[in-house]
Amino acid sequence: MNFEERIRCDRIKNKVMSAEEAASLIKDGMTIGTSGFVTGGPKAVPLAIAERYKNEKIKLNLYTGAIVGDELDGAFAREGLVDKRIPYQTNKDMRNAINNGSVKFIDMHLSHMPQQIRYGFLGKIDFAIIEATAITEDGNIIPTMSVGNSPTFVSTADKVIVEINTSQPIELEGMHDIYEPKDPPYREPIPITKVSDRIGVPYIPCDSDKIAAVVFSDMKDTTLQLTSINETSKKISDYLIDFLQTEIKRGRLPKTFLPLQSGVGNVANAVLAGFIELKYNNLNLYSEVIQDAVLDLIDADKIEKVSGTALTLSEEGLKRFYANINKYKEKIILRPQEISNNPEVIRRLGVISINTAIEVDIYGNVNSTHILGTKMMNGIGGSADFTRNAYISIFATPSTAKDDNISCIVPMVSHVDHTEHDVMVVVTEQGLADLRGLSPKERAMMIIKNCAHPDYKDALMNYYERSIKKHGAVQTPNLLDEAFLWHTRCLNTGNMKI
Amino acid sequence: MNFEERIRCDRIKNKVMSAEEAASLIKDGMTIGTSGFVTGGPKAVPLAIAERYKNEKIKLNLYTGAIVGDELDGAFAREGLVDKRIPYQTNKDMRNAINNGSVKFIDMHLSHMPQQIRYGFLGKIDFAIIEATAITEDGNIIPTMSVGNSPTFVSTADKVIVEINTSQPIELEGMHDIYEPKDPPYREPIPITKVSDRIGVPYIPCDSDKIAAVVFSDMKDTTLQLTSINETSKKISDYLIDFLQTEIKRGRLPKTFLPLQSGVGNVANAVLAGFIELKYNNLNLYSEVIQDAVLDLIDADKIEKVSGTALTLSEEGLKRFYANINKYKEKIILRPQEISNNPEVIRRLGVISINTAIEVDIYGNVNSTHILGTKMMNGIGGSADFTRNAYISIFATPSTAKDDNISCIVPMVSHVDHTEHDVMVVVTEQGLADLRGLSPKERAMMIIKNCAHPDYKDALMNYYERSIKKHGAVQTPNLLDEAFLWHTRCLNTGNMKI
Ligand SMILES: CC(C)(COP(=O)(O)OP(=O)(O)OC[C@H]1O[C@@H](n2cnc3c(N)ncnc32)[C@H](O)[C@@H]1OP(=O)(O)O)[C@@H](O)C(=O)NCCC(=O)NCCS
Ligand SMILES: CC(C)(COP(=O)(O)OP(=O)(O)OC[C@H]1O[C@@H](n2cnc3c(N)ncnc32)[C@H](O)[C@@H]1OP(=O)(O)O)[C@@H](O)C(=O)NCCC(=O)NCCS
Repeated sequence: MNFEERIRCDRIKNKVMSAEEAASLIKDGMTIGTSGFVTGGPKAVPLAIAERYKNEKIKLNLYTGAIVGDELDGAFAREGLVDKRIPYQTNKDMRNAINNGSVKFIDMHLSHMPQQIRYGFLGKIDFAIIEATAITEDGNIIPTMSVGNSPTFVSTADKVIVEINTSQPIELEGMHDIYEPKDPPYREPIPITKVSDRIGVPYIPCDSDKIAAVVFSDMKDTTLQLTSINETSKKISDYLIDFLQTEIKRGRLPKTFLPLQSGVGNVANAVLAGFIELKYNNLNLYSEVIQDAVLDLIDADKIEKVSGTALTLSEEGLKRFYANINKYKEKIILRPQEISNNPEVIRRLGVISINTAIEVDIYGNVNSTHILGTKMMNGIGGSADFTRNAYISIFATPSTAKDDNISCIVPMVSHVDHTEHDVMVVVTEQGLADLRGLSPKERAMMIIKNCAHPDYKDALMNYYERSIKKHGAVQTPNLLDEAFLWHTRCLNTGNMKI
Repeated sequence: MNFEERIRCDRIKNKVMSAEEAASLIKDGMTIGTSGFVTGGPKAVPLAIAERYKNEKIKLNLYTGAIVGDELDGAFAREGLVDKRIPYQTNKDMRNAINNGSVKFIDMHLSHMPQQIRYGFLGKIDFAIIEATAITEDGNIIPTMSVGNSPTFVSTADKVIVEINTSQPIELEGMHDIYEPKDPPYREPIPITKVSDRIGVPYIPCDSDKIAAVVFSDMKDTTLQLTSINETSKKISDYLIDFLQTEIKRGRLPKTFLPLQSGVGNVANAVLAGFIELKYNNLNLYSEVIQDAVLDLIDADKIEKVSGTALTLSEEGLKRFYANINKYKEKIILRPQEISNNPEVIRRLGVISINTAIEVDIYGNVNSTHILGTKMMNGIGGSADFTRNAYISIFATPSTAKDDNISCIVPMVSHVDHTEHDVMVVVTEQGLADLRGLSPKERAMMIIKNCAHPDYKDALMNYYERSIKKHGAVQTPNLLDEAFLWHTRCLNTGNMKI
């Protein structure tokens, strides 16, 4: 490791300390804002904080980009250190703490969070804890595999702790494009008109006086486990690609295609993988996360440019990325989530959004966050930033969960995250429903017919028909006294079927 | 009437005809896109269409800006002429037709509609029917009291019928600012950085060859009835203004204030009227509709600039406006609804949005559209365009409806138009709940305590507490089997109380 290359700012060389020493700066009641968006979160410092305070049970507010590793969410949750948690998580122990009431979780649109921090709506950030590749001559911070909310945490925090991760290659430098908008009434248009536009600087600006500690670490991110593409994902991908091709033929999508966004997980990865077969060789992605399939597309020379806020690769993907870093770097721009998820840019570029739903109802409302109406799964993440502003907004889900005991198409979703006004296309392994320009009753027919699993089709139609019998052909036929009967049955028996 | 001043384009003088002749151009199965956003809709031509086809019962798709007069929605609905209706309406007969299934109503975000028309998602527009003040030398159209979707209807329609309304003063010319964005991948930033920025031309560009008919009329818009400000509205307004003042004191709103948006109706008007008392004299509005209170604010010299897509004045307001048209015109810009409601501009300017809810639930989800879960009221309109992108998003509603028989604060809203992720402040005549940075359970306590009517407070708390007893302190405690019990009781007895 070349120390000089990792800390280039002389003024802060005396701030190098152990993770334990840095952890002692954190005090009860503080709000900490950390880097991390699946990848790129600090690890050594959080573990040291958890260790130091495990018997004292202090309370901290934990703000991140999105998902952070077990070193942060898991360790903090297990030690009971968290009061407020914003904005997204997937850790088992953190999720339990949220659903037993010990952690207050605020489930926010990812693009809303940084501006609400600057506006002062979420309190003061005491410490930003940021994983870095290096610190520049002026004290600016070069992030690692994600950007997330780090620019705003750094610009608003009282003090900054930098965790330099020497397991990250120095070549990451130059991949990031950091731009923080001014606040109203001084905000200017965000000057991105093409996915490839760089509008900022390749580091997170940081006043070196703010840096309270620099800690060296070489801990690796926990990588995502991508299962090989299964039959369900493949069918969903096939329906979707066929749909998009037809849209081009019908002249409703430009022949050159439009930038794609695709969410986290296997289905999303499978859909992108499907593009390998196609003839496009100038694909652009304007996305939040960048998964393995993107490397395949780059290798197959299909990609013009990929913009996101995080590289979220599998173990195997990561190896490929490191082995050919300069080639991939040329194609990739990592931006703050305020920019990757920005409504202004998403609508301007005409992004086609593909996200995963927990459940969808017959009128096209989508639940992305709650299991059976009450328990938090992960959070809304950026799904609504993209969905509301997409050129075409798509939700994909298998038609059932838990060995067909749960239908993901239901009479009424038990929590609404995306309304009927926002959802254009629903696709399952059964088929695709194009809801554009359809009234609710037309949507119901199409979703039941095209997307529902055969085990649930008749029951859905029965609900719909009895709703009309009771209320007439109103705008949105529903039986309010049994809208959630399937969910309550499932709560009692583990099965939505009678 | 000076004919030459109203039609300045020689090429189309031979297109002048009667409303009846123009009506005969419209054929079964056509889609017509009309001007009109509360005000400014065509009147003579629609009445002639309704008259001509009353026995033939042809079917048309009717697309408008938003609300149109009884000459259009009422007459068409009564004659059964409408197949598909987009995007917003308030007419009694149209509403009945929607809720008995004879009209297919697509309830869309107002800012989504014009781009979805250009993208080809809503079919082809056969005829645009546009109310005008005058036609320019080149055939371009000067609108009247609203802009709405007219630019997109004109640019995409096969043919255009212009209804020149001679009851509208020629001085309206110059008040409009027409800008239609290009579509992806060619769209550019919308260059508005201040409410007062003019970015387009003062007329709707129109190829004169497209003009199939010019009809003269002098029919007046039905004006809105504003009741005098009642005690409930006054209390809501007081709570809101106190809240906004406190935000400035706490440094969370700029001292110079930010642009306001306020919805249609009495509460919205009362809130704006409340600003008369304040010391600001550079208020800006970036809104959809412009109501009477704005004239008061202009008269009191409190206004820098007002931007909207429609002037929606009462009878009395309209008289005042005409009497002093040049003074008011200087302060007002009317834009296409794609621009007045544009997420990009709303977020950039930091608009404070104030809209009215039908009902709000204890977690902050808002229903703006459905009565008791099934029947369409008006539509979502622009409320979500503003809410999602606002600097502070506010929903106001009286705490009860129908002589206290209905609580507007409920355990779970019977339809979700604005999710818990989007709603920052809820205010009723009982008080105000500031939900920013609160988790769902904290929100529930605050909404029940501050906003619910005393008649319903205990029952709401009881629902909340029993939900926790059943499921534990999960993210969002709910009893799915009785979430809508109040609504079904009301359907049966007309009353939500036991
Ligand atoms: C919705 C979301 C949870 C789906 O995740 P996923 O991993 O793709 O989906 P899976 O099908 O593997 O389902 C995840 C789990 O939920 C369960 N599940 C899925 N649908 C369910 C339903 N309707 N009811 C109950 N459980 C359900 C699955 O069985 C699975 O359980 P397991 O972990 O015990 O096996 C995830 O995409 C998400 O958090 N989305 C919101 C944020 C977002 O969209 N981010 C991307 C934006 S840019
Ligand atoms: C929500 C909305 C319907 C409220 O309208 P309003 O005229 O301000 O509200 P009111 O309190 O006068 O209520 C209107 C009617 O609904 C009834 N109502 C209100 N709340 C109700 C409830 N919870 N359940 C049943 N009926 C209810 C009222 O009693 C009243 O009935 P009436 O016409 O028979 O007297 C209206 O603001 C709307 O359409 N909003 C959506 C679009 C929008 O926000 N546009 C502005 C965006 S820029």
